[in-house]
Amino acid sequence: MKLSKRILSMQSSPIRKLMIYAVEAKAQGKKVYHLNIGQPDIVTPKPFMEAVRKFDEDIIKYTASKGEDFLIEAIVNYFKVYNVDLKEKDIIITNGGSEAIMFSIMAICNPAEEVLVFEPFYTNYNGFTQATGVECIPVTTYANQGFHLPKKEEIVKKITKKTRGILISNPGNPTGVVYSKEEMDLLAEIALEYDLFIIADEVYREFIYDGLEFTSFGTIKKIENRLILIDSVSKKYSACGARIGCVASKNNELIANILKLCQSRLCVPLLEQIGSAALYRMDISFLADTKIEYNRRRDLTFACVSEIPNVICRKPTGAFYMIAKLPIKNAEDFVKWLLSDFSVNNETVMFAPAEGFYGTPGLGKDEIRIAYVLNEDDLKKALNILKLGLEQYLKLVK
Amino acid sequence: MKLSKRILSMQSSPIRKLMIYAVEAKAQGKKVYHLNIGQPDIVTPKPFMEAVRKFDEDIIKYTASKGEDFLIEAIVNYFKVYNVDLKEKDIIITNGGSEAIMFSIMAICNPAEEVLVFEPFYTNYNGFTQATGVECIPVTTYANQGFHLPKKEEIVKKITKKTRGILISNPGNPTGVVYSKEEMDLLAEIALEYDLFIIADEVYREFIYDGLEFTSFGTIKKIENRLILIDSVSKKYSACGARIGCVASKNNELIANILKLCQSRLCVPLLEQIGSAALYRMDISFLADTKIEYNRRRDLTFACVSEIPNVICRKPTGAFYMIAKLPIKNAEDFVKWLLSDFSVNNETVMFAPAEGFYGTPGLGKDEIRIAYVLNEDDLKKALNILKLGLEQYLKLVK
Repeated sequence: MKLSKRILSMQSSPIRKLMIYAVEAKAQGKKVYHLNIGQPDIVTPKPFMEAVRKFDEDIIKYTASKGEDFLIEAIVNYFKVYNVDLKEKDIIITNGGSEAIMFSIMAICNPAEEVLVFEPFYTNYNGFTQATGVECIPVTTYANQGFHLPKKEEIVKKITKKTRGILISNPGNPTGVVYSKEEMDLLAEIALEYDLFIIADEVYREFIYDGLEFTSFGTIKKIENRLILIDSVSKKYSACGARIGCVASKNNELIANILKLCQSRLCVPLLEQIGSAALYRMDISFLADTKIEYNRRRDLTFACVSEIPNVICRKPTGAFYMIAKLPIKNAEDFVKWLLSDFSVNNETVMFAPAEGFYGTPGLGKDEIRIAYVLNEDDLKKALNILKLGLEQYLKLVK
Repeated sequence: MKLSKRILSMQSSPIRKLMIYAVEAKAQGKKVYHLNIGQPDIVTPKPFMEAVRKFDEDIIKYTASKGEDFLIEAIVNYFKVYNVDLKEKDIIITNGGSEAIMFSIMAICNPAEEVLVFEPFYTNYNGFTQATGVECIPVTTYANQGFHLPKKEEIVKKITKKTRGILISNPGNPTGVVYSKEEMDLLAEIALEYDLFIIADEVYREFIYDGLEFTSFGTIKKIENRLILIDSVSKKYSACGARIGCVASKNNELIANILKLCQSRLCVPLLEQIGSAALYRMDISFLADTKIEYNRRRDLTFACVSEIPNVICRKPTGAFYMIAKLPIKNAEDFVKWLLSDFSVNNETVMFAPAEGFYGTPGLGKDEIRIAYVLNEDDLKKALNILKLGLEQYLKLVK
């Protein structure tokens, strides 16, 4: 039985495909610190489960394909804090930010058409585009430039007549970059000049450090008809398992057409919408506190990693990831080895090999993505394991 | 800003696109009986919310991309009742049966490849295939043959070198047909002869009337490597808003590849899996009672509709839908008119125009799908509104 080429050619998630080694390590009684996946250890705010527990209707019914009004209203209000003026009709609730991005890509690209991404980029962008037959065209950014955008000519030379949009996460996953207002204006200019959509994945917008200010693409008036904003409760409210996100756009035709995709999967679960609405309605101070916590974790992570000999990293200014370049050839082998053959006091650590975050073959092979999603004590232990592990591994592979 | 051809060419759900007229009717104070959508008024069994309320972990975390083990185990046990021998590794949890079908189609078909469907068919099969660039090739079945399969030659003449599978719902939505063992064997024979997959959507397997016995495609040993079984909690447990379904197959390569699609959307919500596991663990007697209830509703619906002059329908033997042919030209206009311009004691009724359930242009224009998902009192009132409405409409359009 032959499967489709499109599915055979898809990659396994670099974040998840090595999970089997972590499962084996745990079966052997090892504790594994998961710095491979953006699953924070921050407690999901109580209002989520409180709202869910209060649900007392007799039937768990289908919801509206576009999402429930109470959740959409809560999101409209949330966006006001960021000066993004959205109306109820501009928003569609999705199964996480993932579905929001997938539907957006399908809405703007036919198979074999292209979106530009800045590499290293969130590896699941590959999953979404491969699944929909779209090409992710990478524009490389570099650690020594803080992963900021290259010059305009470097970007536009990747644009072809098949390019339909720019897909960008700001703050950046996995780089932790926060783009400046000038960089955003440059992308807006390019989008206008080349008639492109911008899909702006801003799910980490709350996590910005060093006094930097966050500007949403949603505030750039001249691109409002070509902007698709992505949001999600996963990261900011530590509710990854709720799978609630949204697509927001002032382009009515786009929203009306994405609704057809939504209708074909009927709807998003009811309870998770009830819980998520309670999150979006929370006082913004929760997010401020969370940011302080991640700021500490970032500082600690950067301090620990930059102490390790011959490891190169940049202090990230946003999100909760950091790319680290290791003095080895193949980071995936090293990650597997840490899980299978190494431990400190019967504990080990897992990272995501960064190669899968690049579109250009060969790049990122010696890099890992570190998600600083655990508390400071755990981070210290985990990064010490990295340090000791690397020391030993270098002797082995010599 | 130009959207993609693939999204522009998608149809709106015939089940949902007229909802705006229902919303308007309600805004005018009318009560609307929804026989347009398979949303039962049966109470979702208490174990669902009881299990959800008991969840007391601190964090709503990502779950496994393949679904949580406790739910998969519950499903393995559930299938034993139907003599379908599945192992844990054969099952992947999905966002409802919808995602299960969508992923299955993507796994077996490249864009422009084809699946056979028996029309009238569940209209969202169009949504799934349009979204994935696949062609739904209809093989027509007829009311006067009880919507049973045509002869082998009628089926195989629709097979081309682009055909990759047969997508079939058994019991049938919207026809209510239950295929005989001989018909299933015929499809198995065709699948073997032409090297096709069978995607068997059996989400209504509990709803079989008149003493008919249900046989799952999962019991036909010789096709086990080319069979993809679809299940869902939506209908049997009246939990449509939970959006939990699954893909099951003995074809390990298929499951491993579908897992890549699952990884790209990360996971299915946690709470809904907890609640759904409690449903699958329930004593099978709940399903037997539900079937008795739907049997009564079916009898009532058929009795009421067949009394209406010049309306043609067949008594369905499964699921909870019935196709009715009306003595009018355009059923969609009639459905809109019922919502906008007609009421009895300030109440009206909504159906799904059946045209969207056909792939062959022109078929089904004068038909509606009736979902007998409400209690007998409501059904009586709703079908009386149909009768009186049709009477008046026929005078108007004369």
